[in-house]
Amino acid sequence: MSEHVYKIVELVGSSTQGTDKAIQNAIARAAKTLRNLDWFEVIETRGHLENGKVAHWQVKVKIGFRMEA
Amino acid sequence: MSEHVYKIVELVGSSTQGTDKAIQNAIARAAKTLRNLDWFEVIETRGHLENGKVAHWQVKVKIGFRMEA
Amino acid sequence: MSEHVYKIVELVGSSTQGTDKAIQNAIARAAKTLRNLDWFEVIETRGHLENGKVAHWQVKVKIGFRMEA
Amino acid sequence: MSEHVYKIVELVGSSTQGTDKAIQNAIARAAKTLRNLDWFEVIETRGHLENGKVAHWQVKVKIGFRMEA
Amino acid sequence: MSEHVYKIVELVGSSTQGTDKAIQNAIARAAKTLRNLDWFEVIETRGHLENGKVAHWQVKVKIGFRMEA
Amino acid sequence: MSEHVYKIVELVGSSTQGTDKAIQNAIARAAKTLRNLDWFEVIETRGHLENGKVAHWQVKVKIGFRMEA
Amino acid sequence: MSEHVYKIVELVGSSTQGTDKAIQNAIARAAKTLRNLDWFEVIETRGHLENGKVAHWQVKVKIGFRMEA
Amino acid sequence: MSEHVYKIVELVGSSTQGTDKAIQNAIARAAKTLRNLDWFEVIETRGHLENGKVAHWQVKVKIGFRMEA
Amino acid sequence: MSEHVYKIVELVGSSTQGTDKAIQNAIARAAKTLRNLDWFEVIETRGHLENGKVAHWQVKVKIGFRMEA
Amino acid sequence: MSEHVYKIVELVGSSTQGTDKAIQNAIARAAKTLRNLDWFEVIETRGHLENGKVAHWQVKVKIGFRMEA
Amino acid sequence: MSEHVYKIVELVGSSTQGTDKAIQNAIARAAKTLRNLDWFEVIETRGHLENGKVAHWQVKVKIGFRMEA
Amino acid sequence: MSEHVYKIVELVGSSTQGTDKAIQNAIARAAKTLRNLDWFEVIETRGHLENGKVAHWQVKVKIGFRMEA
Repeated sequence: MSEHVYKIVELVGSSTQGTDKAIQNAIARAAKTLRNLDWFEVIETRGHLENGKVAHWQVKVKIGFRMEA
Repeated sequence: MSEHVYKIVELVGSSTQGTDKAIQNAIARAAKTLRNLDWFEVIETRGHLENGKVAHWQVKVKIGFRMEA
Repeated sequence: MSEHVYKIVELVGSSTQGTDKAIQNAIARAAKTLRNLDWFEVIETRGHLENGKVAHWQVKVKIGFRMEA
Repeated sequence: MSEHVYKIVELVGSSTQGTDKAIQNAIARAAKTLRNLDWFEVIETRGHLENGKVAHWQVKVKIGFRMEA
Repeated sequence: MSEHVYKIVELVGSSTQGTDKAIQNAIARAAKTLRNLDWFEVIETRGHLENGKVAHWQVKVKIGFRMEA
Repeated sequence: MSEHVYKIVELVGSSTQGTDKAIQNAIARAAKTLRNLDWFEVIETRGHLENGKVAHWQVKVKIGFRMEA
Repeated sequence: MSEHVYKIVELVGSSTQGTDKAIQNAIARAAKTLRNLDWFEVIETRGHLENGKVAHWQVKVKIGFRMEA
Repeated sequence: MSEHVYKIVELVGSSTQGTDKAIQNAIARAAKTLRNLDWFEVIETRGHLENGKVAHWQVKVKIGFRMEA
Repeated sequence: MSEHVYKIVELVGSSTQGTDKAIQNAIARAAKTLRNLDWFEVIETRGHLENGKVAHWQVKVKIGFRMEA
Repeated sequence: MSEHVYKIVELVGSSTQGTDKAIQNAIARAAKTLRNLDWFEVIETRGHLENGKVAHWQVKVKIGFRMEA
Repeated sequence: MSEHVYKIVELVGSSTQGTDKAIQNAIARAAKTLRNLDWFEVIETRGHLENGKVAHWQVKVKIGFRMEA
Repeated sequence: MSEHVYKIVELVGSSTQGTDKAIQNAIARAAKTLRNLDWFEVIETRGHLENGKVAHWQVKVKIGFRMEA
């Protein structure tokens, strides 16, 4: 409501299942140590290939959270 | 076939389920009032977080449709 | 380990199912003729619309593979 | 709350006073005909010069508003 | 002169003749329903190929027009 | 003078007054816990709208500070 | 119709006549060895100057073609 | 009216007061030696920090002016 | 041949005829006062509209020339 | 191997010797307090000039490291 | 001299020594199988870290070569 | 200290030795005719190839210098 300040951290989440899950993994990790998570933005989507298949989906995200005053 | 002109509208679709569904929601809304929808392009993917989890996936898309001559 | 060189090819995969599947289709096609596939990067996500719905998801990817020395 | 869709319109506001006022003028004009305005993003800042001074500040903004379901 | 506001629409013009004609086709279509057209900006140039030749030149443009007060 | 290393943090400052004030709020918050703040760069300017007016100006900035050796 | 995969090659066409002709030259060269050419995108337009005039127009294009299954 | 050519110079204006004033300072300096200034575009906004506050706002602008025929 | 240095100037050429001619007008103007012009790059293509038609095509170019040693 | 999450920090390394050394200085500083450094990406290269020469090479890098689970 | 067409391939060269050497390694590999190499452009510079040091410098380059007529 | 204005010139330095030397050559040339050089930014790195090797490294830089009041 008032004049909040937000901090942004940049993480890369990885997953064997897909892009949405890679994002969720990054957010879950951030939530372990940060409170007041507010939004995320996808920066880059890529992945590691093994044997001609996607072994890990990797999504770089920025995660914003409200700082304590 | 002949020299068509296309118009582009920019929407943000949101979904509690995932990025693909957010795109589909934006397109479904556009289809309510526009005809001849032809293609979409993803511009930005982000989302709203609540309690350390993705509450809403939000995808900004451009949607192109053929204009009547 | 040593000073490898990697080549990058650019493909567009399409799918009727979703963005992740479109990526996988592009990689599967590359794996038919290229060995040592190592990573991919998403360049652009778009799709073709028919009857107000997504008919084909189309994802442009760059795929990197290690070149034989 | 639920799965809203937002539309984005692109305007250029101008002002003889400054950049913030140019943004406000664009939003005020949008508010005349659109409801549920939700956010704006600055795309480009420029201006017209006359006699070696800024005659008009011009700010291109995207304005997002919630569409009726 | 005073503090005008401009709106921007995004169109794709196509032409069998060339890029400049594709731009003109987009503008001609816009001029059918919009007044006070003021400027355009080219966003993207592409085209459709058939039989190893350009079948349609396609130019995405933003067109700005002055809004009524 | 010698070979310093700088760290960059990314914040979003908000303000009800304007863009410059939103930047200053982000910097003031950073200055509470970080020393040797050296420069900032504006990454994005946006804002939240309520009742057809700017309720909060939001400016995303990168802030650089010299690290202790 | 089904789940095609497209490959993209990047060429620079040059011409003494103009930008559209430079594009056509690139496509004509691609058509000598590739089948199923489908679309092109302009990436960059530049040229070589001699005696204060354009000696060669040079246009970098990406050309997409459907891969055999 | 006729086929003018414009030249663009790139300056960084600085100010202790704010971003708009930094722009104005750059334009005032350009106006000392250049005639027919026509428009400016903001390229980058940054600033120098001292004691946890903005000491100088710095705005990089491109300034266009009509060349004598 | 040896270690030349090149300078780049940025101009906007305009033309009533088309984009290629606007580029040529900018280069012709540069050639009036600069020697050893070597290459150009297109930065932006836009234009001014009057009565629903293109009145002036405007192309922003960077022009590189070899500096005297 | 499993679904790791990586964090990215952004540093500017400086050096009197060259760009590669500036990168190495940033990484050496990061290695003092962070474990599991995995990759870096160059974001921007610039430098400070004194007496018409490069006094400090400055390279902005993002450095990624694997987070503890 | 006449209307040549150039093809561009994208490679990533790696080196334990530095960025320039990584570029040279990519070019040397290309020269094994391609003739008439004409220019390169750096697209991205990154690297792999081990034990808090740069283990491999990795530079993504585009390499252009003149195609046989 | 006070409200300085800086001008930016854009040069391409070339060198047979490497990227850092190409930057230094551009700056040395600028220093012949300009005073108060303050900083540089790398815009683009490319080079000319001969016989499958780098013949000239070419780096495009922006160089900023403080203008006399």
